[in-house]
Amino acid sequence: MDKLTLIKVGGKIVEESGSLESLLQKFSLIEGHKVLVHGGGRTTTQLASRLGIESPMVDGRRITDAETLKIVIMVYAGLVNKTIVAGLQALGQNAIGLTGADLNYMRSEKRPVGEIDYGFVGDVKEVNAEILANLIFQGAVPVLAPLTHDKKGNLLNTNADTIAGEAAKALAKYFDVTLVFCFEKKGVLMDENDDDSVIPEITRKSFKDYVAKGIISGGMIPKLENAYEAIDAGVKEVIITSADTISSGTGTRVI
Amino acid sequence: MDKLTLIKVGGKIVEESGSLESLLQKFSLIEGHKVLVHGGGRTTTQLASRLGIESPMVDGRRITDAETLKIVIMVYAGLVNKTIVAGLQALGQNAIGLTGADLNYMRSEKRPVGEIDYGFVGDVKEVNAEILANLIFQGAVPVLAPLTHDKKGNLLNTNADTIAGEAAKALAKYFDVTLVFCFEKKGVLMDENDDDSVIPEITRKSFKDYVAKGIISGGMIPKLENAYEAIDAGVKEVIITSADTISSGTGTRVI
Repeated sequence: MDKLTLIKVGGKIVEESGSLESLLQKFSLIEGHKVLVHGGGRTTTQLASRLGIESPMVDGRRITDAETLKIVIMVYAGLVNKTIVAGLQALGQNAIGLTGADLNYMRSEKRPVGEIDYGFVGDVKEVNAEILANLIFQGAVPVLAPLTHDKKGNLLNTNADTIAGEAAKALAKYFDVTLVFCFEKKGVLMDENDDDSVIPEITRKSFKDYVAKGIISGGMIPKLENAYEAIDAGVKEVIITSADTISSGTGTRVI
Repeated sequence: MDKLTLIKVGGKIVEESGSLESLLQKFSLIEGHKVLVHGGGRTTTQLASRLGIESPMVDGRRITDAETLKIVIMVYAGLVNKTIVAGLQALGQNAIGLTGADLNYMRSEKRPVGEIDYGFVGDVKEVNAEILANLIFQGAVPVLAPLTHDKKGNLLNTNADTIAGEAAKALAKYFDVTLVFCFEKKGVLMDENDDDSVIPEITRKSFKDYVAKGIISGGMIPKLENAYEAIDAGVKEVIITSADTISSGTGTRVI
């Protein structure tokens, strides 16, 4: 099978023009088939604030009411996605920006209201990987915004890590997938105050130990859970690293 | 050749949920290959105003400075485009939303500064119709936002009528194209105060006469100029009508 690298980058990297340019340069140097998944939370928070709309976060997840949904659609599918697509096209990468609604590539259902009402947030139910794979085999580079749809006319906010994990799992039928989660640090850190204390490899057992000891916490936990789900579903390898090192092969390897 | 209907709808129709729903219903009933091109000016004006950004219009064209460009990207490529795509998917239409940057399907150049500096506005230079045609032959329904790119990393604001005309002309190589311009009225009116005074047919000669007499003026002039350019370039027919009548075959036929 052909190799495919699926890279997820967070908001901070793609929302500043300097770091975005550097990321897109490095991304364009990666050989073989590629997919980019992006966030955009900071711009969303800023725009909501300028418009006087509250968008509270619970455990790193945004509560998405109807007004906030409009903002995330504008920011994720509009400003952030298309800025990336135009930037990649300038580098000769045949990018195409997609939400889950486009070609119905990723369908979700609105998260049921439990203890917390997350609002217009979608849990992924179906990935039409063949559609993505066709585009990729034709030379396209999908750029995936963190939005899905319910196929009933509603767009739904969906965590970018989840989009990356679900897309990687589904594409594993067609490609040898390397899933790369980028964030601000060079990898998962042993000591959050030491940027060079990258844990080179995390196993299921050490993951549990790190969580129990509080070394791994917060948003890193769902990131690693997504990684293991992806591996269970056929993804070849998951790497957690910074945007600066996506082409160097360093970072934390999750096995 | 297969028949293809390319419909351009203005902002007002797609920005109100009632008229949008009705439009998408009618659009989904049209047989054969389809493309939808949309505006989004009213939402742009509203959002700019809420953010305290001025976006002046000259002769119906928006002056697009850097801040306004961000807003049009958010509104056109984000909110309006993806709301349409999700709505069409709910109706079983395999919609895909595109800007000119996506798959590099439409490249433009920033309009040179003349008497007026339009800012980040693009004049279309190249349409990769094969890319659109491939998607359409695979059953996709492209939904085109009024944005192009310069392949140097910049998105550019481009009039939706122009996008529709350029796409129709380029697609005429692959399809028998009917180009439909929708607006608020049932067609081009003989008397602007009488909504039923639709001119059934306009020829090049009568167009000139109507302009000279002031019966046709303002934004209708570039619309008709686009229509004739499209016919010159191989488009089979151009119809100017309202969104309510897109499937009835009434309106003004431009020949």
